[in-house]
Amino acid sequence: MKLYDDKRAPNPRRVRIFLAEKGIEIERVDVDIMSIAHKNDANRTLNPFTGVPFLVLDDGTVIAETVAICRYFEELHPQNPLFGKTPLEKALIEMWQRRAELGLFQTIAHAFRHSNPYMAELENPQIAEWSKVNFDRIDGYLDKFDEALSQSAYIAGPDYSIADITTLVAIDFMRILRLKLTQKHPNLSAWHERVTQRDGSVM
Amino acid sequence: MKLYDDKRAPNPRRVRIFLAEKGIEIERVDVDIMSIAHKNDANRTLNPFTGVPFLVLDDGTVIAETVAICRYFEELHPQNPLFGKTPLEKALIEMWQRRAELGLFQTIAHAFRHSNPYMAELENPQIAEWSKVNFDRIDGYLDKFDEALSQSAYIAGPDYSIADITTLVAIDFMRILRLKLTQKHPNLSAWHERVTQRDGSVM
Repeated sequence: MKLYDDKRAPNPRRVRIFLAEKGIEIERVDVDIMSIAHKNDANRTLNPFTGVPFLVLDDGTVIAETVAICRYFEELHPQNPLFGKTPLEKALIEMWQRRAELGLFQTIAHAFRHSNPYMAELENPQIAEWSKVNFDRIDGYLDKFDEALSQSAYIAGPDYSIADITTLVAIDFMRILRLKLTQKHPNLSAWHERVTQRDGSVM
Repeated sequence: MKLYDDKRAPNPRRVRIFLAEKGIEIERVDVDIMSIAHKNDANRTLNPFTGVPFLVLDDGTVIAETVAICRYFEELHPQNPLFGKTPLEKALIEMWQRRAELGLFQTIAHAFRHSNPYMAELENPQIAEWSKVNFDRIDGYLDKFDEALSQSAYIAGPDYSIADITTLVAIDFMRILRLKLTQKHPNLSAWHERVTQRDGSVM
């Protein structure tokens, strides 16, 4: 199988960290998003919804969408579970993974994509007001994650999970907006320092 | 346990259909989104990210986020699986569920929330240009789902799954934009007629 990804984009990084946590190495094909390579004919045929990452199995089956790829590897390699073990753990990890993705990550992504000149071709039209609305919402999400981390060692409870991966990648992605964590969010800052030290937290 | 939901909103409907497909009945608490009840102090304490649905277990644990609630019931009641059985099925259902939700459903939701006067308090500020961008993207998503349904009986393959539930709810939600399926999308129309006839497809 081959993983189609882009070295700089945040969603492929989520899969790379997941694979590193699982100790899985697979062949990669570089798709340069900035040169719109994910929308060329060959890649659009593989993933009609466009975007990376996507995984092409040896029989040609394509699994697209970051979390779908991670779930596939979780099912194939259940040791060191990153989606939880019990029904309740699985539900709470799914909840926090979605809060991290649909809340924090998407908010940062919209703020970036609708303001950065390099995104003008990919995000057309760019809407400055929509960027600003999202930019202004980021701090409220950080407050909620900081509060959660006052209660538990990791985002979704006592164990590291895919919710930590999504939150880490989202927070590092803030740099592109010239934002970084401060001591306004001490729990999140301490957590960020801890998870960044894990071997898998490669950029 | 109690399910906090709203009778008219689309995300709670996804959970209601899921539970009906599983044959599960549970107690419900009505939260009227239009009167902003999901943001009152009591509900915000239960779900700080606000929004419905959320599930409150007998010990007080809260599971929020539509798909997290569905996954909890899937784990407790694995018969008649709606998230797939094999690793590949699970991955492909997750892929299509996410395409339906992050693509089609969110696009419809943004088009609606940023244009409808009744949403002015919930979605503040409303950005007319962002509504229009999303409105104009809906048809392209319908094209892709129609194409997928030329290859298989259901959205993610030969079996009905949570991807069908999300797609059904998204398409019915288009009515609020005065959009409906036409014969431009014959596979999607035929599928819609079939899944609407299932006992669980309650509004």
